[in-house]
Amino acid sequence: MQIDQLKFDENGLIPAIIQDATTGDVLMLGYMNHESLTKTMEANETWFYSRSRQTLWNKGETSGNKQSVQKITFDCDADSLLIQVDPQGPACHTGEDSCFYRTLYANNPNERNVIHTLTQKINERRRNPIDGSYTTYLFNEGIDKVLKKVGEETSEVIIGAKNNDKQEVVWEISDLTYHTLVLMEILGVSINDIKKELYGRHIQKEGNQRE
Amino acid sequence: MQIDQLKFDENGLIPAIIQDATTGDVLMLGYMNHESLTKTMEANETWFYSRSRQTLWNKGETSGNKQSVQKITFDCDADSLLIQVDPQGPACHTGEDSCFYRTLYANNPNERNVIHTLTQKINERRRNPIDGSYTTYLFNEGIDKVLKKVGEETSEVIIGAKNNDKQEVVWEISDLTYHTLVLMEILGVSINDIKKELYGRHIQKEGNQRE
Repeated sequence: MQIDQLKFDENGLIPAIIQDATTGDVLMLGYMNHESLTKTMEANETWFYSRSRQTLWNKGETSGNKQSVQKITFDCDADSLLIQVDPQGPACHTGEDSCFYRTLYANNPNERNVIHTLTQKINERRRNPIDGSYTTYLFNEGIDKVLKKVGEETSEVIIGAKNNDKQEVVWEISDLTYHTLVLMEILGVSINDIKKELYGRHIQKEGNQRE
Repeated sequence: MQIDQLKFDENGLIPAIIQDATTGDVLMLGYMNHESLTKTMEANETWFYSRSRQTLWNKGETSGNKQSVQKITFDCDADSLLIQVDPQGPACHTGEDSCFYRTLYANNPNERNVIHTLTQKINERRRNPIDGSYTTYLFNEGIDKVLKKVGEETSEVIIGAKNNDKQEVVWEISDLTYHTLVLMEILGVSINDIKKELYGRHIQKEGNQRE
């Protein structure tokens, strides 16, 4: 696929959805013309066309909040782009991570990113201990205590499973997940380290014997 | 915020990014006018305006692949929407889950959704056993074997952590994650069950003692 085969609109523009490659959060919707898309692919960072100022702009040029491009896909009509990026700061000029920070309508709470959010809370609690916080207690006790809890929660997963108690298993796997995230914080292991390992092992290597 | 405060363009349209509320995948970019957005919020399923046919259309009306609306947010300029949905089938008329299935440019492999993808592979392997597959072997051996592996992998996480061997910990947590996902498949526990539990426990209840 070449850029020339994309369908730019009557103003020579194509909408580009900008998504955080790690969290999946949609950060902003921008517009690109042929030139800014070319620059985006060459520089490996996002360049847009400002409809109000009628000029190209490089996201983060003044703020420093650049967006490193990981992947660009286009839709079935070839008239819109999805650009996955690693953001080096907030996408929005208001300082919010995403421009889509205001809610028009909500049906259910969104727990999609709970693991990332929980990881951030654990990291925050490590940097700013709080009296009476269980996470602070774990950091104070140290790695042996956390490892004891990891072992204990695993035993409880096994017991719950042998009791065929689905709700108990959900509870205990959640407990195991939380304590494993605390362990990862202590050891400097990131969620992406685990995802990369699983990706390389199970997804990328098709026909892997393990599958 | 009222619909009237949104900025519809000169044709009375606003672009709407459709995102899977669970996986975070961006599914399509559609356009809505005041009427289709109102219908979307009333019916709790997506209604768009077709620019080519100049008519409203209800996503999934003929295909059955409706999109239940979970949340609608709007951006800082109030001129684009992000709609998080539970899709009841593929978003794309080609049968692909997402309209953005073709790649223009790729820098890094995307492992963001590896847990969801791996869960699907495990489920697929349960429905379609393959000789020589490790996952098939685990399903054939049954839950006691899987629980033994969960215990074993946890022990290996503990040993790796005590050795302060980061790469070993990444490897063993990945192993633990994989075997826990196999256990969840057997017990009918979904990733969303765990996410909901963690969300309710750690994120929703601000000031929770555990934090």
